[in-house]
Parts: sequence; C-alpha cells; structure tokens
Amino acid sequence: MNINQNYKNLNESYLFSTIAKKVSEFAKANPNKEIIKLGIGDVTLPLCNAVIEAMHSAVDEMSKKETFKGYGPEQGYDFLKSSIQKYYKNNDVTLDLNEIFISDGAKSDLGNILDLFDKDNTVLVPDPVYPVYVDTNIMAGRKIVYINANEENKFLPMPDYSERCDLIYICSPNNPTGAAYNRDQLSNWVDYATKNGAIILFDAAYECFIADKNIPRSIYEIEAAKSCAIEFCSFSKTAGFTGTRCGYTIVPKELVFDNMSLNKMWLRRQTTKFNGVPYIVQKGAAAVFTEEGQKQIQENLNYYKQNAKIIADTLDSLNIKYTGGKNSPYIWLKCPNNMNSWDFFDLLLTKVGVVGTPGAGFGMNGNNWFRLTSFNTTEKTKEAMKRVYELLK
Amino acid sequence: MNINQNYKNLNESYLFSTIAKKVSEFAKANPNKEIIKLGIGDVTLPLCNAVIEAMHSAVDEMSKKETFKGYGPEQGYDFLKSSIQKYYKNNDVTLDLNEIFISDGAKSDLGNILDLFDKDNTVLVPDPVYPVYVDTNIMAGRKIVYINANEENKFLPMPDYSERCDLIYICSPNNPTGAAYNRDQLSNWVDYATKNGAIILFDAAYECFIADKNIPRSIYEIEAAKSCAIEFCSFSKTAGFTGTRCGYTIVPKELVFDNMSLNKMWLRRQTTKFNGVPYIVQKGAAAVFTEEGQKQIQENLNYYKQNAKIIADTLDSLNIKYTGGKNSPYIWLKCPNNMNSWDFFDLLLTKVGVVGTPGAGFGMNGNNWFRLTSFNTTEKTKEAMKRVYELLK
Repeated sequence: MNINQNYKNLNESYLFSTIAKKVSEFAKANPNKEIIKLGIGDVTLPLCNAVIEAMHSAVDEMSKKETFKGYGPEQGYDFLKSSIQKYYKNNDVTLDLNEIFISDGAKSDLGNILDLFDKDNTVLVPDPVYPVYVDTNIMAGRKIVYINANEENKFLPMPDYSERCDLIYICSPNNPTGAAYNRDQLSNWVDYATKNGAIILFDAAYECFIADKNIPRSIYEIEAAKSCAIEFCSFSKTAGFTGTRCGYTIVPKELVFDNMSLNKMWLRRQTTKFNGVPYIVQKGAAAVFTEEGQKQIQENLNYYKQNAKIIADTLDSLNIKYTGGKNSPYIWLKCPNNMNSWDFFDLLLTKVGVVGTPGAGFGMNGNNWFRLTSFNTTEKTKEAMKRVYELLK
Repeated sequence: MNINQNYKNLNESYLFSTIAKKVSEFAKANPNKEIIKLGIGDVTLPLCNAVIEAMHSAVDEMSKKETFKGYGPEQGYDFLKSSIQKYYKNNDVTLDLNEIFISDGAKSDLGNILDLFDKDNTVLVPDPVYPVYVDTNIMAGRKIVYINANEENKFLPMPDYSERCDLIYICSPNNPTGAAYNRDQLSNWVDYATKNGAIILFDAAYECFIADKNIPRSIYEIEAAKSCAIEFCSFSKTAGFTGTRCGYTIVPKELVFDNMSLNKMWLRRQTTKFNGVPYIVQKGAAAVFTEEGQKQIQENLNYYKQNAKIIADTLDSLNIKYTGGKNSPYIWLKCPNNMNSWDFFDLLLTKVGVVGTPGAGFGMNGNNWFRLTSFNTTEKTKEAMKRVYELLK
C-alpha cells in the first residue's frame, strides 16, 4: 500500500502550542498575576434564544415517530436553503436553491472542495494566511504561489497580471489581518480570475462584521463572479456556531469548465462523501434568519464590535498602525519599534499579562505584526488595553 | 484551471430514482391499493429517551455563558471517546483514546480516509457492493478490482492469494447482502492483508445487529488486525442517528507504513479539513452508552430484528434462498424461478404492492437477487409478507 507522500511535506505548526506553553510557564511563575487572553479565535457568547428554542423543538421532533427525521438531503433542507437565499437577496444577490449547499462548516468545505480540481493546478495564496489553505493543497501536492500582503498594500494584495494561476484564495474580511476588500478591489480580482480561467475560493466567514457599505459581503455582489467564484460561509462567527457546526457553500451553475458543471460535481462529491448536517442543527441555523434571531445575533455581534473598537481606539491613541477592527473581529497591529512578533508577544505577556498571537505564525509577512481579537469580555478587553496603554505610551 | 477528470468516469446511478418513478406511476394508476415499502434503508423509530434528554440538556448548556461550548477537539470529546473505549472493551478489544476519532458518520470517513493513500493503489471491492466504496475511488482515479460475492460462496468471498491489492473493503454484516463473516473467515482476510502489506477498510456500521457469538463485532477481535485495518462505525443504525449524524473511526497506532503513522496522518487530515461533531450530538451519542441508553436502543434493535425474522420465516416457508436476516437488518433473497431482479421488482409491485430493491442496483452478482429491509413497522412487514406468501406459494 502506498501512502500519500505529500503528507511528508507538511510542516508541523507549533504556533498555538508554543503560545500555550509560554503562557502556562508564566502563570506558574507568577501565580498572582491575572492573564488576559486576546488571542482567542473562538466566540464566547452563548447561542441566542431563537436558536436555543428552535433546537429544543427539533430535539422534541426527533423523539416522536410522527416527526422523527432520518436521512435528510445531503445538500441540506430547503427550509434552511430558502432562508439563506433570502439573506443573499438583501444584498441583491440572486441564488438558485440548488446553488446552496449546507455544510458542517467552512473549514470542511474549503478543504473538500479541492476534490473537484486536478493536482496540476497552481494555487495563489496570500501571506499571511489562514494555514488551512496551504496545508490542504500541500496534502494534494499542488504548487503554491504566495502573494505578499504587507504594509505597503495595506494587507490587501492586488492581482499581478504577469503571474498565472488556477485557484485563488481570498478571505475578506481577512483572517488574520482583518483587512477587507472594497467593491473595486474585488472587481479587479474577478477580472483577473476570468482572464486566467481561474477559480476564486472566497472565504466569507467574517462577512457579518462588515459595516462599511462599500465592502461587499458576498463576492457575487460583483456581477461576473458567478462565472469564476465559489463562496464559503459559516454560522460560526455570525451566530456563535463554532461548537454547533453549520455553514454553507455557494457553487453557481455558471461554473462550467471543460464541459463539466462544478455545481453538479460538488453535488456528486457531497452525496458520495457526506450525509448532511444534523436536522437539529439545521433547525437552529434557520432560526438565525428569523426577525427575532437577527435581532439577537446582532446584539452579540455589536458586543464583539464594541470590544474591537476599544482595542482600535487604544492603538490610535498610541499611534500604532493596524488593519481590521472595523469590519472584522481581528486587529492586526504593527509591533512598536519594529519588534519581532515573538519578542512583542513575550513583552506583553511578561510585562502586563496580555496574550495575543504573533504574526509570524501566519507567514513571513507577519514577522513584525501581531493579532488581537475581540472575543473576550468587554471588562477584560478594557483592562487589557489599559495595561497595554500604560506599557507603551 | 484543470478539473479532476476522474469525475467523468463516474456512472450515474438510476437505482433509487427508477424505483421511485415506478412506484409513483403504480400508485397513480392504482389509487386504492396500499403500497408497503420494504426497500427503505433508513431507520424509522424515533431517538430513545436517554438520547433526547441528553440533547435537551446539552442545548441548555449552549444557552448559558458558563457552560457554552465553542470549538471542540476535531477528533471528538473525551467523554464520548471513553464510552466507545469501554464499549470495545466488552468485546475484549483494547483501544487507546487517541485511536478513536469521532466523525459525522461512516460515509464521510469512508470517503475521506482515502486522502491518506496514493492514487497508485489497487482497490479490492466485493460485487455486490455499497456504491460509495466504488465511487470514492473512481473520483481519485484508483484501479478497482472486483471480487465475486455470490451464491456459491454464500456472498462471503474469501481472499484470492494469486491477486495482489492494496486497499480492501469489507462490510460485515454486509450491505446489501446481510451476510456476515465469522472469526475464521475474518482471520483469513487479516492474514491476506498482512501478507500483501494491504489495508482493510472495515465497515462495521451494522455490528449492532450481530447476535451470533462467532461473528466478530469488530475486526480488532482478530489480534493481528491492528496492524492492517481501519474500522468505521456509526450510530445511524445502532441508535437511529441517520438524521442526527455521528459515527467513529478507529485508526490503530500500529498502522505504520513507509515510516508514516496513519493515526498521525488521519489526525492531521481531520484537524485540517474538519472541525468536529456538534457538542449537542456528541452528548446524545454518549447517552447511548449509559445503562438506560443501552436498554432503550436494544428495544429498538429488537423491533427491527423481529421484522427481519418475519421476513426470514416467510422465505423459509416458501423455500426461497436468502442471506442475512439474522445478524443484519437486510434480507438478500434469490428471485424465484431465476427471475431477473427488475422483473421480480415489477412482479411484487404490480401484483401485491410490495416494494423492495433490485439486486442489480448493487452490482452484476445481484442480477437475480433482491433486497428487503426490516425498517418498516411490524404490522406492515407482516401484511407485506402475507401478500408475498400468497403470491409465491
């Protein structure tokens, strides 16, 4: 039996384990110092009432023969797909129900979608980057080309027409940088993909944090995108579903390459290698789109946005450069005095007990940058920023 | 962009759509005839109380900040893995917690596990077969070799030592044939795999229907299997989780090929392309292993087993040959008078309004065979068998 040799080319990531080790060593040596974690990439507020009620009711349905649900459609129930269809309509994007596929999260589909593409494709990935884009392609043995996201381009790299590629990853608003493409910039990427016969894999997991009207929530707000883009979205950050697991993927019917419809290929992939998302979870996800649900998740999002503003205001007052914080739960800041991101990590931890994530963990262009997140409580975020201000003022 | 050309080699399956069409045409033409479906491959009894209560309680946990669960371990929570570990211990199989991976179902993992193997492997698949084994390998472009499961070998083919292969699919108790390997037969397969340096992908989705002490519930009851087998199991049939989605995959640490640990490779695959099963669902699955849960699921299993016996007894009285029905929810019968399986389908539908599944849909060796399932109600199963008896006696 021959194993997939590409796995030998994967690098172990020691980012979060190294952070955990440093934090626990510090805590042990300084038992009386309160450590505040602004490195968390996970939500902390509970599921909203509308979702809770819908899930209780779905659990009850599963307890009675008359309402019990067995196998559902692999691509998701129409009640949830219809809600998503209406949600897109709010941004003037018209989708066919068959273009919407319910998933157990964006991470799964971002990896699994690669089944549809040949090994012989060149992949364009920004640096810094969500490591999943890189590792999933290394596992398949594809050639990866990096494009620099840096201070010069405000961490929003634009296409280089002299470079050819086949698959393009765009995450906007971005993890880790929080930077978000405006309409013109995204149009430029759509043009480039169209001219190259390439596919954009558009990760919209953070769309719910967008406040600015000029920043598209969906790549399909750019007309021609339906012929060159697949969009991935998730309830994880929108509605706190990180432990509840639901997302969706849009594969437009216009995506036809080599006489093959990617929509039909994905349907075949999912009906063969997936059995759908739990009925109970889909019922919970559908409740997010009710009037009550929308109101309740907005309250949670506002809470996180307020935290982001506390961080952003502190950085402004310190004259520290950053991206994000406005249309994103992430704040990506330049380490003061051009410090190395691990040195800055050590400084914050040892001097003021504040934990963030060194940018180096996301790629070369993160070496002097640092990620803070807005997912802790407002009280702790305020306290952390007070300490950071005192340290760096 | 180059698509995965292997998708062009997939055959469309018209099995279930053809059945649905024939049934709906018959129903339209005969509005007064009651049609009884014994073709269903899905459970029909609701989730047991222990599971329902555990899920309600988990939903409540998700509603409070103090007990809310965000991202969990991709490979599953220890509370569920420990329960599975104990369940295996009942059959004298000792597993390390790190060898157990919680999944959203056997179908997902049976497909996704192939990520670990090179395209250049020869796959051994029985005929008739669960189509997923075939399609997932066609998608990856692997060479497939079929092994005949037929009346002669009682639908339990044994290894052919003159044939080399790398990946071997065994489903026992089998879908669609209901046949189950005994200890000696499975040992023979383990020996063959060991000698070939091959991996057995053991689908144990129907293990809960095994009553016979000489039929292993896990391939690891065969000692050497830990060095050559990956096992897939599911709560779908065990506890009615077809719409609730939970399963588990065992990847032993002994599986080291080419200096690579398949256990570590699978962990890397899952942490990169999967984000775990919903907390609520894992809590429900863990309740299956409580004393109360075991008692309750056994009642449901006994209900299905009783239906299987009704079918088997009828076939005995008609002198019709079959496999399954004893350690399986499936009954695989030889069509009377060597009829073609589609002709027999038409006969049962048009003469007595009973629906089953033509064996031809599962492979060449099913051309004269027919699958009935035990998932309808006892009343309807009795009525269907009464009609079949009258027709064929």
